[in-house]
Formats: sequence, structure tokens, C-alpha cells
Amino acid sequence: MQPLPTYDDVAAAAGRIAGHAHKTPVLTSRTADAELGATVYFKCENLQRMGAFKFRGAFNALSKFSAEQRRAGVVAFSSGNHAQAIALSARLLGIPATIVMPHDAPAAKVAATRGYGGQVVVYDRYKEDREQIGRDLAARHGLTLIPPYDHADIIAGQGTAAKELFEEVGELDALFVCLGGGGLLSGSALATRAFAPRCKLYGVEPEAGNDGQQSFRSGAIVHIDTPKTIADGAQTQHLGALTFQIIRRDVDDILTATDAELVEGMRFMATRMKLIVEPTGCLGFAAARRVAPSLAGQRVGVLISGGNVDLTRFCELLVGG
Amino acid sequence: MQPLPTYDDVAAAAGRIAGHAHKTPVLTSRTADAELGATVYFKCENLQRMGAFKFRGAFNALSKFSAEQRRAGVVAFSSGNHAQAIALSARLLGIPATIVMPHDAPAAKVAATRGYGGQVVVYDRYKEDREQIGRDLAARHGLTLIPPYDHADIIAGQGTAAKELFEEVGELDALFVCLGGGGLLSGSALATRAFAPRCKLYGVEPEAGNDGQQSFRSGAIVHIDTPKTIADGAQTQHLGALTFQIIRRDVDDILTATDAELVEGMRFMATRMKLIVEPTGCLGFAAARRVAPSLAGQRVGVLISGGNVDLTRFCELLVGG
Repeated sequence: MQPLPTYDDVAAAAGRIAGHAHKTPVLTSRTADAELGATVYFKCENLQRMGAFKFRGAFNALSKFSAEQRRAGVVAFSSGNHAQAIALSARLLGIPATIVMPHDAPAAKVAATRGYGGQVVVYDRYKEDREQIGRDLAARHGLTLIPPYDHADIIAGQGTAAKELFEEVGELDALFVCLGGGGLLSGSALATRAFAPRCKLYGVEPEAGNDGQQSFRSGAIVHIDTPKTIADGAQTQHLGALTFQIIRRDVDDILTATDAELVEGMRFMATRMKLIVEPTGCLGFAAARRVAPSLAGQRVGVLISGGNVDLTRFCELLVGG
Repeated sequence: MQPLPTYDDVAAAAGRIAGHAHKTPVLTSRTADAELGATVYFKCENLQRMGAFKFRGAFNALSKFSAEQRRAGVVAFSSGNHAQAIALSARLLGIPATIVMPHDAPAAKVAATRGYGGQVVVYDRYKEDREQIGRDLAARHGLTLIPPYDHADIIAGQGTAAKELFEEVGELDALFVCLGGGGLLSGSALATRAFAPRCKLYGVEPEAGNDGQQSFRSGAIVHIDTPKTIADGAQTQHLGALTFQIIRRDVDDILTATDAELVEGMRFMATRMKLIVEPTGCLGFAAARRVAPSLAGQRVGVLISGGNVDLTRFCELLVGG
């Protein structure tokens, strides 16, 4: 078992990614403020390089490779954004990358991963075990496996987004963060406890796949089948050993949002904020809307995780097929 | 004839709008840089309040009203974004607003104008003279008419966007700005000549309505019929007396872009930058792409004017109806 990362690891990650990752803007909307009766700060990781926060963790992890690890290469398994993040980071650092992706990953994500120079290996998400495939490739070719969330360097890297948010806007009363495997949420937890100890921190999952909520409330990691939800970035089957420990310790609660609420969130982002946000990226805002009465008069942060959604899919969801 | 505004008026406008207008982010895209062979800075006025730069000029103009003008109210004629900008600014400043809008203005813009509390008067864009309607309303009710671009306070306010851009990124080799009636372009010219005297400054119009290019090259204001273009924010029939003088003096050239190029610009903004940009807002980027060989190795600014496009229309243009 790796030791748990701490806020010091987040601060060190911020140094490694500086000049490589975008310092994404924090945007506000008077309409959102009026609707929630609060002051809302949106940290826009859809405007991050390759369109999602995942670049932070991937670049941080690969930056720490030894010369030997760099020569041999990296392997990763991912439903999409982590794949692109590893492929892009590897290219920037001159490291060969092999990416294990599900057969039904969004076309834009597969194309982008290949575009960044990653070698893509496809598997059947409903029948095969991607972790086993990744481990086999790693063993056979001496590659270093970088999992999408349950890794100290990934968690520390993802925490830099919340760090930037707090540095820009100061303390918050509540922060809403998307939850899949828990990399972003646990990293955000490390930053939150360093900058705003009294801030309520919420993870938000798709209602159809609330394994994180079940795990948080039962005290043990719950495994579920791959959930059917439009939030393809949060279709994880279970939290990680590391992310769960941090989430149990530092997070206040896990909330959920329905697919319909995610679509309404995407519509708000598109029409009022002029932002393309992928379904997973709307989890935080959807939950904040649902619990709005409890946020009256507060300073609220919402982490938008990414914007990688096919334009055709985006229009199907918002305008109809 | 009003005196021409100067950079001092832009600086004063910046003081008046501070805390009311967003200081919009300047975004970059490695993909855009690679495609243009340049370093490109996008000033994102689609992320401005009410979704367009127009809020800057409107708020600046209304801030200067006397107590008597405030009581009587403002009247404005506009194809859209100026209408919303006046309506919102008027509401914020407690001034009654009447807006004269074309019958075929985008539904989102009419709804937003009403949503901000503006009283909407509709006219037929192909048959009636909006300026005459506006003047009649002003005379009858003692309202102050604020035209959409040919007004010193409007020009000065619009110039604050380029001012912020230069303050954030320093000198540029070239700056591309959308051109309709010339408010944004002439305001940008005042800021450009103050911050970057040697910067090449380009206005960009729809190819179907190149009255500005004709005027610039002939030395006299050319009037055209309302052009048929998807760039509904640049369907003006002629430059203003004030904007033309500044443009003649300070702008290097006027370029054009086709509707097809605007759609490709919108697609780039949506897929690579995760931004919803209205067709008019892509004029600058489209022209920069067209002249890319001349920009090699340069530092280039692109002003994105706005993002107010119906979601249905957006999807029709990008995915097909």
C-alpha cells in the first residue's frame, strides 16, 4: 500500500505542472447566483489542456518517472479523459504511451488520444477487465502502469485545481466536486483542508452509479456493475483504496444527480455561460442546484471537470436527435 | 458632430465599468498556435456579462447620464446584443429602457432583453428605418437615444476589452477584431495605438457585407443593403461617422470571412476550446486563419465578440438540421 498523499504533494505537483497546464479561469454568473441564492465560483477545467482536469494528474505522475521508466514507456487504462491526459503528457515528456480504452469510448476521445501519439488498445467494457489488460502489458514490456485515479501522484496532481480555486477566491463555505473513482475529489479534499478547513466538501456521482455514496455511508468500498449514465467520465465501478481513505476522512457527504439534471446543467452552461461542458462535468452544479436552499448567502465553489463531448452527442442531448 | 473619443476616454470607461463588467479571460490553444504557426491570445467577450462585449459600451454610456436623463429613460435600436446590453445596464442603474428590435432577431436575444426588464418595440428590418423609430420615441418621451456604435461613450467602453488584453499579455504583432458598425474596432484602435503602436490592427467583416472594407479603401462611408449572412451581429449597412474616422486613421486593413469559414471557426471553438461563440464572434479568428502564412512566429490577438446564439441554431449550423 502506498502512503496517502498530503497537501505537500499537491503543492509540489503545482510546481511540476506550472507552465505546462493552463491555470484555468474561475468564472461567475449572476444568473447562477440568483438561482442558488449564493455566490458561485465555477473552476473551469473544461478549459484545461485536452479539455479536462486529468492533464494535471497525468503530467505530475509522468514528471516523476526515472530515466529508465521514461525509456520503457507508460501504459494506462481509461474511459477517455485520463487516456488523453496520459497520451499528451507522455508526448510532451518524450515518453512512449500505450492506452487501453473501452470499445464504446466517445469517438472524440479515441481520436484525440491517437492524435496525441498514444497507441490505443481496445477492449470490451462489459466483458473484459481493463486493469488485467493493463497489468499484462506492463509486465510484458516493462511499462509503468499509471491508473486513472488510485495513485498518489494522480491524486496530488488533481488537487492543484482546487488549490488554484482557493488561491484565487479565498475561503468557501461549500465546494462541489464530480466523483468517479475519486482522484479529483480526494485531491480537492487535500487542498480544501489546507485552505478552508471549515468548508463543506461534497462529492457528486451519477444517481445510476452511486457506489461512492454507498461506500461513504457504509464505511467499506462498494463495487457495482458499470452504471448506465450519460456521465461517461463517472462510470467507475468502485472507489480506489487510496481515494476512499481520503474521502472518508475529509469529505462531508456524497450526493447524486440524475441524467436529466446533468442535461439541464449542460443547457445552463451552454446558454448562460457559453461553455461546452461534458455530462460528467455538470455533476457538481446539478447537486448544488438540488441543495440550493441550504446554500443561501454562502460562497460556493463548483468544479467543472471537463468538456470532452462529441458535438453530435452534445446536440442530441440538448436539442434532440 | 461629437468630438472623437481618445484613449483617455477608454481609460475612464474602464474605471466606470470596473466591478460591473467581467474582466474576461484571455484563453490560449496549442492547437490554434500550431495551426497558425503563431502564439494566439483569444480575448473571450463571449464570457462577458450578457454574453457579449456590448455590455462595456452600454454601461459606460448610461453611467454618464444626468439625473434627468436617468429619470426619463433610454431608448436603443439593435439587432440583439446592444439591446441586451442597454437593457441590463439600465436595470443595474435603475433607468427605464425601451429597445427597438428587428422582427427576426434571434429568439434568445429578444427573450434575454425582455428578461433584463427592457420594453421591446418590434420593427421590420427589411422595410422600416430603426433609427427613425428610435428618434421618434426619443422625441416623444424625452428619452435619450444611445445608438449601437456611433457614440463616443460606446466606442470608449468597447475599447476596454482590448485594453485588458494588452494589459494582460503585453504588446502584440497583430490584432483581429470583428467589424459591424465599428464600435468595437474603433475602441480597440484607441487601445491598440496606446499600448502597441506598431501592432497591425485588422477589422473583419462578413464577405456578404463588406461595406467597411469598401469604405476603408475608397475613403468615404459606403452604404449597402442589409447583407444576408449568419453573422447577425455584423449585418450593419454602414459604418458610423465617428467610427469611420478612427478606423481610417488607426486601422491597417479590413478583411472578410465567408459564412462557411465562420461555421468552421465555431466548430474549432466548440471542439478545441469548449466555447460557444456566435457566428459574428468568429470573424477575427476566421480571418487570422486565412492570412496565417503572414503571421508566422508572431504574437496575435483575436477578439471574440460574443456567444449569443440560440442552441438550436448552433446545432443546425454545426451538426445539421
